[in-house]
Amino acid sequence: MTIYQQLQVLGITLPAVATPAAAYLPFVISESHIYLSGHIAKKDGKVWIGQFGKNMQTQEGVHAARAVAIDLLGTLDAACSSLGKSLNDVKQIVKVMSLVNSSPEFTEHHLVTNGCSELLSAVYKERGAHARSAFGVAQLPMGACVEIEMIARI
Amino acid sequence: MTIYQQLQVLGITLPAVATPAAAYLPFVISESHIYLSGHIAKKDGKVWIGQFGKNMQTQEGVHAARAVAIDLLGTLDAACSSLGKSLNDVKQIVKVMSLVNSSPEFTEHHLVTNGCSELLSAVYKERGAHARSAFGVAQLPMGACVEIEMIARI
Amino acid sequence: MTIYQQLQVLGITLPAVATPAAAYLPFVISESHIYLSGHIAKKDGKVWIGQFGKNMQTQEGVHAARAVAIDLLGTLDAACSSLGKSLNDVKQIVKVMSLVNSSPEFTEHHLVTNGCSELLSAVYKERGAHARSAFGVAQLPMGACVEIEMIARI
Repeated sequence: MTIYQQLQVLGITLPAVATPAAAYLPFVISESHIYLSGHIAKKDGKVWIGQFGKNMQTQEGVHAARAVAIDLLGTLDAACSSLGKSLNDVKQIVKVMSLVNSSPEFTEHHLVTNGCSELLSAVYKERGAHARSAFGVAQLPMGACVEIEMIARI
Repeated sequence: MTIYQQLQVLGITLPAVATPAAAYLPFVISESHIYLSGHIAKKDGKVWIGQFGKNMQTQEGVHAARAVAIDLLGTLDAACSSLGKSLNDVKQIVKVMSLVNSSPEFTEHHLVTNGCSELLSAVYKERGAHARSAFGVAQLPMGACVEIEMIARI
Repeated sequence: MTIYQQLQVLGITLPAVATPAAAYLPFVISESHIYLSGHIAKKDGKVWIGQFGKNMQTQEGVHAARAVAIDLLGTLDAACSSLGKSLNDVKQIVKVMSLVNSSPEFTEHHLVTNGCSELLSAVYKERGAHARSAFGVAQLPMGACVEIEMIARI
């Protein structure tokens, strides 16, 4: 089964690459690694705003982190295409850094981030298992509830 | 035009490499990538102290982030020199991580960080366009308003 | 002197690799680099809970960061073993990212993180000197006082 078939089984449609909100690129390819910029969570095309421990719950965060993972896969697909390759050619999801918009009391950043990690593993199986850091940040650009960056090897 | 001529056109003088405030190096070269440590913002040689959403405005932050970018280029120059090379030999600014000292209300970390990203693009043109994450941290070493780390390929 | 003899001189016993609290791996090897996931501080096998500027002092944090460094070396040892190699074969500690659980007032994240950096240098000498970012986060998974991730070259 190809990655695209796997996405179809999961009912996932890849989005177009979002234009960064500022002066940078959605991804840079450096030798065999693809560095994806931090992607903020979106819902219905708008910034998914919220802060855990204040006005957002862990379970909603899992969905937000999953949504970011889908956007990251959309960007990864575009990065692969720019090399004349496809998502099938990704050798490994290497690392994920997950920034969770968090009050000083919230302590379930790892559970929120599982929404991203589990989607990556569902799509890429062994190749999707990655190193990871997840932590609580004071705020995120435009008030987003989650921002995630990723490194993959092609 | 060389990178040094481009810096001259922009009126930028590269600083000497700052000595880290602690037990680490300003940069490490690993194969073809140069990893630059987080550089905190400085003004007139002193730590540029402040917190966005409390006692600093976005526009001042753009200047602070630009100042960090110049310090990063100074360190990158030293890293290149240690290889018998120069800033002209940098193939790509790969990734920037920008830590913005932020109250839980401030949401313009991306605009602050543009001060760094736009300087890198002005100096390196296409080679300066990079992947990026920017987010709000609870505090920074010595109260600095911004800290930025960078990866470049040589 | 091998790295294992050096650890013995320092009185350090390497721990077993901790099972991640969520859906990710403790390390991923990508070509010649080992990416270690963020490791949270532990004391007597339990999460070392605390927030600097609120209920933890810098000096205690130095010990916590040193404890994380030992756990990172345990994971690095396992990563090397998976390649049929050992800690002696590590060529360079490339980069450390240190997340310090911090109130908006605490500004000594660099001093806390020295507990990790100095241990790495004591064990690996020149090969242990690394690039680094240290900063204050709003909170950490399970309330941990420090979380550190690392990249090493094998």
